[in-house]
Amino acid sequence: MLIGRVIGNVVATKKNLKLDGEKLLLVQPLDLSGASKGAPLIAIDRVGVGPKERVLYTQDGRTAQQILGRGVSGVDAAILGVIDEIDFSHG
Amino acid sequence: MLIGRVIGNVVATKKNLKLDGEKLLLVQPLDLSGASKGAPLIAIDRVGVGPKERVLYTQDGRTAQQILGRGVSGVDAAILGVIDEIDFSHG
Amino acid sequence: MLIGRVIGNVVATKKNLKLDGEKLLLVQPLDLSGASKGAPLIAIDRVGVGPKERVLYTQDGRTAQQILGRGVSGVDAAILGVIDEIDFSHG
Amino acid sequence: MLIGRVIGNVVATKKNLKLDGEKLLLVQPLDLSGASKGAPLIAIDRVGVGPKERVLYTQDGRTAQQILGRGVSGVDAAILGVIDEIDFSHG
Amino acid sequence: MLIGRVIGNVVATKKNLKLDGEKLLLVQPLDLSGASKGAPLIAIDRVGVGPKERVLYTQDGRTAQQILGRGVSGVDAAILGVIDEIDFSHG
Repeated sequence: MLIGRVIGNVVATKKNLKLDGEKLLLVQPLDLSGASKGAPLIAIDRVGVGPKERVLYTQDGRTAQQILGRGVSGVDAAILGVIDEIDFSHG
Repeated sequence: MLIGRVIGNVVATKKNLKLDGEKLLLVQPLDLSGASKGAPLIAIDRVGVGPKERVLYTQDGRTAQQILGRGVSGVDAAILGVIDEIDFSHG
Repeated sequence: MLIGRVIGNVVATKKNLKLDGEKLLLVQPLDLSGASKGAPLIAIDRVGVGPKERVLYTQDGRTAQQILGRGVSGVDAAILGVIDEIDFSHG
Repeated sequence: MLIGRVIGNVVATKKNLKLDGEKLLLVQPLDLSGASKGAPLIAIDRVGVGPKERVLYTQDGRTAQQILGRGVSGVDAAILGVIDEIDFSHG
Repeated sequence: MLIGRVIGNVVATKKNLKLDGEKLLLVQPLDLSGASKGAPLIAIDRVGVGPKERVLYTQDGRTAQQILGRGVSGVDAAILGVIDEIDFSHG
């Protein structure tokens, strides 16, 4: 799982039926300092993240589909949770 | 899923039978500013994208085959949709 | 399998049910000299690693789930073991 | 799928039985200008590519095995076709 | 499949049961000139490679497990063979 921030969403009217009704969130990968690192990706969310939130996500297609639940396919990235805090105290 | 632009297609007469009749689209990955980033890839399309369109694609082989539908195999990348707009307002 | 160091953990109250009760360890990939290399990731541990320990981990989702055991899904990285020593003598 | 060039082959007498009788082609990934980009890989071919040819290949293990056909396993990269031309005119 | 060199091994007393009795080889990826390129990884060997040998390996977890044979799981990288020579003459 990786750390990113939700920075927007992608509007795509013409798309595969499997994506119908899905909100396509734009996620920017972050490094530990919170700075952007690498190319953004599009992920699906069932957790209910808000704008600008820091999230835990997966880009492993099989894992993403397990997170999104039965019957989901044709999707390769998903939000797993909202990050409240990164704790370095117990290493 | 990632963001790219269709910049051409690849002509391959001598190829595996599983690719027969498939149009092999050349997709250039893009960063958020719309600039090219990284190596181009070849993807299959069932959505019906036009030249130069900005698209949503997957390079996860299993996900690509789910998008392309039953009976498709031997393909590891697919177009999922045409991007109309990237909306940063609700982040 | 790759070499990393446990540098903290991620607190995420709002998350997918599959992650309930899981400790989300923050792992920093290392190079051979022990220096940080690349972006940190979040992995699940069943081995029982301590703070700051150098570990062997996998980012292959399918392998991670095999390591974590039956019934685990929705997770794409796991700790496989604690590294006592890297031995170059028999290389 | 990605674009590369066959630049040689690897000789390995001592190897896993699953590779017995397979020609191990050395493929150099290319960028759009035809320049080398990134580390070479070893792929298996059933298409019948010639020396120095520009090819379409996959590094997705599951896709590679689908291309190579029934009963193939233990291989993670395959040649899919010979590239005649990259056409930018219809982009 | 990729090209690397066995440069050592990792000692890990505390580890997942699936790794019990396995020798954890440290493999350094190489470029065509034989120079180190990228981060080292840990792979399992059933071929019987010797110290410092140049090897063919896979980091595709599913392929690695096919190479290692029935009943192997929880491992994401394996040695496929020892490289005798890289032949550029027939490219």
